[in-house]
Amino acid sequence: MDVNADLGEGFGVWELGDDAAMLDIVTSANLACGFHAGDPAGMLRTARAAAERGVRIGAQVSYRDLAGFGRRFIDVAPAELTAEVIYQIGALQALAHAAGSTVGYVKPHGALYNTIVTHRDQARAVAEAVRAVDPGLPVLNLAGSVFFEEAQRLGLRTVAEAFADRAYRPDGTLVSRREEGAVLDDPEQIAERVAHMVRTGQVQAVDGSSIDVHAESICVHGDSPGAVTIAGAVRDRLLRDSAELVAFV
Amino acid sequence: MDVNADLGEGFGVWELGDDAAMLDIVTSANLACGFHAGDPAGMLRTARAAAERGVRIGAQVSYRDLAGFGRRFIDVAPAELTAEVIYQIGALQALAHAAGSTVGYVKPHGALYNTIVTHRDQARAVAEAVRAVDPGLPVLNLAGSVFFEEAQRLGLRTVAEAFADRAYRPDGTLVSRREEGAVLDDPEQIAERVAHMVRTGQVQAVDGSSIDVHAESICVHGDSPGAVTIAGAVRDRLLRDSAELVAFV
Amino acid sequence: MDVNADLGEGFGVWELGDDAAMLDIVTSANLACGFHAGDPAGMLRTARAAAERGVRIGAQVSYRDLAGFGRRFIDVAPAELTAEVIYQIGALQALAHAAGSTVGYVKPHGALYNTIVTHRDQARAVAEAVRAVDPGLPVLNLAGSVFFEEAQRLGLRTVAEAFADRAYRPDGTLVSRREEGAVLDDPEQIAERVAHMVRTGQVQAVDGSSIDVHAESICVHGDSPGAVTIAGAVRDRLLRDSAELVAFV
Amino acid sequence: MDVNADLGEGFGVWELGDDAAMLDIVTSANLACGFHAGDPAGMLRTARAAAERGVRIGAQVSYRDLAGFGRRFIDVAPAELTAEVIYQIGALQALAHAAGSTVGYVKPHGALYNTIVTHRDQARAVAEAVRAVDPGLPVLNLAGSVFFEEAQRLGLRTVAEAFADRAYRPDGTLVSRREEGAVLDDPEQIAERVAHMVRTGQVQAVDGSSIDVHAESICVHGDSPGAVTIAGAVRDRLLRDSAELVAFV
Repeated sequence: MDVNADLGEGFGVWELGDDAAMLDIVTSANLACGFHAGDPAGMLRTARAAAERGVRIGAQVSYRDLAGFGRRFIDVAPAELTAEVIYQIGALQALAHAAGSTVGYVKPHGALYNTIVTHRDQARAVAEAVRAVDPGLPVLNLAGSVFFEEAQRLGLRTVAEAFADRAYRPDGTLVSRREEGAVLDDPEQIAERVAHMVRTGQVQAVDGSSIDVHAESICVHGDSPGAVTIAGAVRDRLLRDSAELVAFV
Repeated sequence: MDVNADLGEGFGVWELGDDAAMLDIVTSANLACGFHAGDPAGMLRTARAAAERGVRIGAQVSYRDLAGFGRRFIDVAPAELTAEVIYQIGALQALAHAAGSTVGYVKPHGALYNTIVTHRDQARAVAEAVRAVDPGLPVLNLAGSVFFEEAQRLGLRTVAEAFADRAYRPDGTLVSRREEGAVLDDPEQIAERVAHMVRTGQVQAVDGSSIDVHAESICVHGDSPGAVTIAGAVRDRLLRDSAELVAFV
Repeated sequence: MDVNADLGEGFGVWELGDDAAMLDIVTSANLACGFHAGDPAGMLRTARAAAERGVRIGAQVSYRDLAGFGRRFIDVAPAELTAEVIYQIGALQALAHAAGSTVGYVKPHGALYNTIVTHRDQARAVAEAVRAVDPGLPVLNLAGSVFFEEAQRLGLRTVAEAFADRAYRPDGTLVSRREEGAVLDDPEQIAERVAHMVRTGQVQAVDGSSIDVHAESICVHGDSPGAVTIAGAVRDRLLRDSAELVAFV
Repeated sequence: MDVNADLGEGFGVWELGDDAAMLDIVTSANLACGFHAGDPAGMLRTARAAAERGVRIGAQVSYRDLAGFGRRFIDVAPAELTAEVIYQIGALQALAHAAGSTVGYVKPHGALYNTIVTHRDQARAVAEAVRAVDPGLPVLNLAGSVFFEEAQRLGLRTVAEAFADRAYRPDGTLVSRREEGAVLDDPEQIAERVAHMVRTGQVQAVDGSSIDVHAESICVHGDSPGAVTIAGAVRDRLLRDSAELVAFV
C-alpha cells in the first residue's frame, strides 16, 4: 500500500506542517507547485528531502489561488487550466531534476481535486495537460470520478486513493471542509478506519452506510494539527497488519 | 546572424506587442515565463506559434515582479534566485514540449539581465540554475559580463548579444530605461547601427566613443511602438548586407 | 442620464483602453482597485485625470484574480469577500483623496457583478462591505438583482444600470462573454439601442422579446475595440435626444 | 513608553506568530497591509482584536513582495512607491473603520524600513504618501534617518523607536537579518537591554561601543520563536521599572 501526503505547502516565510517528519512516514509526497502554495526555493528543498529518503515526488497541481490555498472553485476556462497544469508540472519537474529525482505522478489539489470528480470540462483539461507533459504519468483521484474517465480515455494510468481522515458522503465524495465533521482527528480511530478500508475495501459514510473505497494509495494530511501523529498511527497500524508500505507503480 | 526578441509578454487579458508579426522576423523568441509577464495559456499559444514557424524558443527568466514587469532590481538571496530560475525554465520546457518544441537557450530579462552583468552572487545563482536544468543550454547576455564568467566556469555556452535599439554607455553596459535617450526609435538609424555592428564589431556609445560589441545575436524589441517596423528594417538591412539570419548553435 | 465605464484597467506596463478619451465622454468612472486590474500608480493617475475633468469616481471591486481579469467565478467565503471589498474600496478612497476627489459609488466587476445578481451569500457579503465602509455609498448593478435586495435591506441606495453593448437574456441577465454575440460592436446600432432604452425603458433580448430595463445609468465599455467610438456615439445620441448627461445622485 | 509589534502577518491559511497573545502585551499594533503579508480577512480579524483591547493600530506598509515577506530591497520608482503606500494605508483604514477603530500611525516594514533610513528618494516617496493620506499620521523609524528628515520637511510627526531584540551597528542602523547575531533571543537579556535603553538612552552596538537610541517606542517582534515570552519579559521589566506602557501621542 502507498501512503501519500501533501507537502511543501509553505510559501516564503510561511510554513505549514512538519515536512521532515512526514517524509519519514509517507511513500509518495505530493509537492505543491506554486499555485496554491510552494515557492521555488521551498519546492527545491522539499524535493531534495524527498529524494534523500527515496520518497517518490508527485505534482500537486492547483488553481492559481495563493490567497485561498486552492480551496475555492474557480471557473477557469479549460484551455487555460490545461496550460496552467502543464506549467506547474514542468516547473516541478525541473526542480525535482535539480534535486536528483523526477516527478512520478500528478495529484490535483483542493478545490480542483474535488471539482474534477464531477466537472467534465475541467477534468478533461487536467487530463490533457498530464498527457501533454508525459503520457506515462499516473494521476491520483477518487475512484469513479469523471476525471478518471477522461484520463483513461487518454490512456493515462489512474490510481484511486482513499482519505484516512476525511468524512465521506454516501456517494463516495468527500464532505466539504466547510462542514462540521469533515475532518477526523483521533489517531487511533483514523488508523482503525484505514485498516478497515485496506482489509475490506469499504468505509463508513457520514450517514452510517458502508461504501466501497477502491484504493491503491491512502492519503494522510500533512498540515492538520496532529498530522504527524495521525500519519504515524496509520503507518504503524498498516505495518502491524502486515501491509507493505511502498509507492504504487 | 541570430535575431532575438522578447515575446509572449502579455498577461491574462493584457497584450504587449505583435507577437505574430515579430515571429515572422526573428530567429529566436525569448518567451516570458510567468514571473514578469506571460500566463501559461499565453506561453503555450506563443510557443505553438514559434514552433509552427520554426523559430527557436528561449526562456526569458526574470525576477518575480509582475507589477514592475521585472524592470526593478530585487535583492533576492542567491539560493532563492536559483530555484526561481529553475522553476521558470521547467515551466516553459513543459509548455514548449506540449507545443512540439523545446527550450533552446536562456536569456534573463530586464533588471535581472542588467544586474548580473556585474552582480556576481546573482550571476552565479542564475548560471547554477541553468546548469541544474540542462548544462547544454546556452545563455545570452552582454559580452564581458560576470554572468558569462560564472556561466563559463560552470561549462555553459555563452552567446553574446548586441541591442539594436538601446543606447550604450562607454563601458559597454546599457543606458537605463529611466534615462533620456535610452531607447532609439528611428528604424533606419537602428538598421544602420546594426549593420555597422555586424560589419565592424563596434557601436557608438552615448559619449560618442566607439566601443566593441561582440555579438552572436542581435536583440530587437517586440514591445516598443514601431517594434515590428524596426525589427523588419533590421532584418531587411542584414539580408541586404548578405548576412544569413539563422539561430545561433 | 449617467454614463459609466470601467477605467484604470491596466496593470504595470500593460494598458487597456484609452482612459483619457473615455474620461471626456463618461460622467462616472469605475476605477479598478487592484484585484482584477489597476496598480496603485495607475489608479492614482486615473483618479487625477477623472478629478481634473469633474468625472465622479466609483470603486470597481472584484474577485482577487489578476490572471483572469476578474472574469471567472470564485467560490469565496462571504466573510473573506466582505473583507476583500472593504480593502479595495479603502485603497481607492485614499488614492482618490490624494487626487483631490472621493469615491462616490461602488460597482462590482466582471464575474462578481454577474454572480451577485443571483448568489445571495456573496451579494450580502458585498453589501455588508459597502455599508461597513460608508452606508452613504450607492451601489450599481442590474435592477431586480438579489444584490439590490440585500443592499436595500441594509439601507444602501441602489442604482440600476443598463448595458449599451451587451446582449440580454429574456430574464434580464447578460449573455456570458464566452457565448457568441454577447457583445455588440456597431456604434450606430448601440446608440440607437440606448436611445430606445432611455425613451421606452425596454430593450430587445436575444430571443427577440422585449424586456424592461430600469436604468439610472448606462454602462459603456472602455476596453473593447472601438470603445471610444461607441461611447462617443452613445453620448452624441443621448445629447441629440435632449438627455442631460450628469452623474446620478 | 509605547511598545509596538508587527502583527497580522499571516496570509490565507498561513499564520505567523500568536497575535492574540501579543495584543495583550503591546500598546501599538503594526498591521500588515497585504503587500508583504496580511490578507483582508486576516487584517479585519486582527483589527477587531486590537480594537477590542484598545490597542492602537498602525499601517505596516511594505514593498509589494509576498514571496519575500518584504525583506528584499526593490528598486521601485518613487512615484510608484508613493501610490503603493497610499493604497496600503487606505485599505487598512477602511478595515480598521469596519472594526470600529482607525489607523493611528504608519510604520514601514522590513527592507523598506531599512532602505529609507538612507535612501532619500524612497524616503521622500513614503513621506509624501503619508502626507497625502493624512498629514496628522505619525511615522515610525530610526532616529536620524533620512526618512525622518523628509517626513519633518513635510510637517509629519516622527516617532523614533528602538528594537528590543535586534543588534545595532555602531552607526545606529540594524545588523541585517542575513548576518549572524542579528536577532537576540534571550528574554532576560533583551528585557535588561530595553530597561537600559529606557533608563540611559543608550544601547551597546555589536562592536561593544555604546550608542544613543532616542526612542518613544520599543519594537518587540511578534513572529520569532519565543516572541510572546520575550515581549512579556520586556513589558514586565518596564512595568517593574515604573514605566507607564501607553501608546505614544
